[in-house]
Amino acid sequence: MSALKIVLISPRNPLNIGAAARAMSNFGFSELRLVNPYAVAFREARSAVKAHAVLEHAREYPTVAEAVADCTLVVGTTAIGPRVLEHPLRRLEFGGKLIARKIATSPVALLFGSEKFGLSNEDMSYCHWLMRIPAREEHGSMNLGQAVAVCLYEIIRNPAAAKIAPEAKRPADAAHLEHVTEFLETILDRSGYVHARVEGSTRMKIRRLVRRLQLNAHDAEVWLGMLRQILWKLEHTSDSGSRGE
Amino acid sequence: MSALKIVLISPRNPLNIGAAARAMSNFGFSELRLVNPYAVAFREARSAVKAHAVLEHAREYPTVAEAVADCTLVVGTTAIGPRVLEHPLRRLEFGGKLIARKIATSPVALLFGSEKFGLSNEDMSYCHWLMRIPAREEHGSMNLGQAVAVCLYEIIRNPAAAKIAPEAKRPADAAHLEHVTEFLETILDRSGYVHARVEGSTRMKIRRLVRRLQLNAHDAEVWLGMLRQILWKLEHTSDSGSRGE
Repeated sequence: MSALKIVLISPRNPLNIGAAARAMSNFGFSELRLVNPYAVAFREARSAVKAHAVLEHAREYPTVAEAVADCTLVVGTTAIGPRVLEHPLRRLEFGGKLIARKIATSPVALLFGSEKFGLSNEDMSYCHWLMRIPAREEHGSMNLGQAVAVCLYEIIRNPAAAKIAPEAKRPADAAHLEHVTEFLETILDRSGYVHARVEGSTRMKIRRLVRRLQLNAHDAEVWLGMLRQILWKLEHTSDSGSRGE
Repeated sequence: MSALKIVLISPRNPLNIGAAARAMSNFGFSELRLVNPYAVAFREARSAVKAHAVLEHAREYPTVAEAVADCTLVVGTTAIGPRVLEHPLRRLEFGGKLIARKIATSPVALLFGSEKFGLSNEDMSYCHWLMRIPAREEHGSMNLGQAVAVCLYEIIRNPAAAKIAPEAKRPADAAHLEHVTEFLETILDRSGYVHARVEGSTRMKIRRLVRRLQLNAHDAEVWLGMLRQILWKLEHTSDSGSRGE
C-alpha cells in the first residue's frame, strides 16, 4: 500500500489535510506528500489527533516534479468532465482498478489539486492520465478530504468480497413453521379472530402468511416461546366477555 | 434519487452536517434527515454556502422511528466488523448494490450514527441490516462526511461506465512511424551518434525504439515537425568541429 503516494498540491485548509490523512489511514495507505502547502495549514493539521502516523511521515516538496520523481505512473484527479481533451480521462471506476493493479508492482502518484483551483494545466502536464470522480459537475467540486476518501475506497474496493453474502442463519424447517402456524391458529381461534376454526381457506391463509415471514431457526424458536406463553395466558384467564364488549 | 433518505443521528459538528450535504449534492441525492441534531450545529451548517439546497430542505425528527417511518428498507452504517451478530452485516460493495436496486422502486433510509458513538443498539434495532465500509478497524472510525461520500459513491457507482475506455486517439500508421525513424536516424548520423549509418542492427534498434513510443497520429506529426526542424538546423550550421572538441 506504500506504493501509492497521495500528493496534495498547495492545500490551504488544515482540516482538509487532516481529512485526507484520516482517509488514508482508514483505508491503509501511508504515503502523504504535500507540494508547497500553506505552512500554517500543514502545522495545524499535524497537531490533529487523528491519523497522526500518516501526518508525522508526510513529506513536503517544492515542486510537483520532485514529489512524483520516483513514480512510474502519475495520475491527476479532476472534477471536470470529458471536455478536457489534452489528457486521457478515465472514470474512477475504471481508473481506480488500473491504479490498484499498478501499485502491486511499482510506485504510483495520485495528485489532488488545491481546494480552490484544482490541478492547474501545468500540474496536469506531469500526469500520464486524469481520473474523474463521477460526481455531478453542476454541483461544484468535491470536498478535498471526501475526494481522497472516495478515490481510495475505489482502489481498495474488493468486488470478490462483495459477493460474500452475510453469514445466513439456518432457516427454520417446515416442522417448526407448522408449529408456529398451529399455535397462531389456536390463539386466533381463542381470541375470536377466526370464527370457524375448521375453515380450510383461513387455515391455508395463515399457513402461507407464516411461510412468508422467512423465519430462521432461532427466530422460529423465539416466536414459538412467545405464542406458547400467549396461549397459556388465554387458557388461564376467565372469559370476562366477548370482543367488543 | 430522492428515494434515498440520508439520516444523520444526533450529529454534533456543523462541518460534518455540511460535508454530508455536500456529498449528497455531488452525487445527486437530496433528502437529508436529522434526528435530534445539536441545534447550534444544524443552524451553523445551514449557513454554509455549499450544498445550500440540500440543507434548506433537510428535515428534523425527534426519533429514529419518525425519521424512517415512510421507508420500506432501513440500513444502518457501521465501522464495526463481523463480530456484531445481532444483525445481518453486508460489506458496502454488496450492500450498496442492494440499496441502488431498491431505491428504483421504494424509499430507503440510510442511517449514520453520531461522530462520537456511531449508531446505538437501539438505533440499529430499527434497521433491516447493517452495512460496513471496508476500512481498517484498528485505525478508528471514518469521518462522518467521508463515510457518507463513500457510501453514496458506491450507490451511484456504475460498473458499465467503467468499461468505457477514454476515447483513444487514432494511432500513427506505419508510414508515419517509418518517417520518424528515418529522420531520427539521419539526425543521429549527422550528430555523430551512429558512426556507420548503414549498420543494420542500429537501424533496427532505432526502428523498434520508435515503435515502442506508441505514438498517436497527431503526436507523430508533432515529432516529425520537431525532427525536421532539428535536421534543417544541422544542415545549415557550418561544421565547427567534431564531437568532444
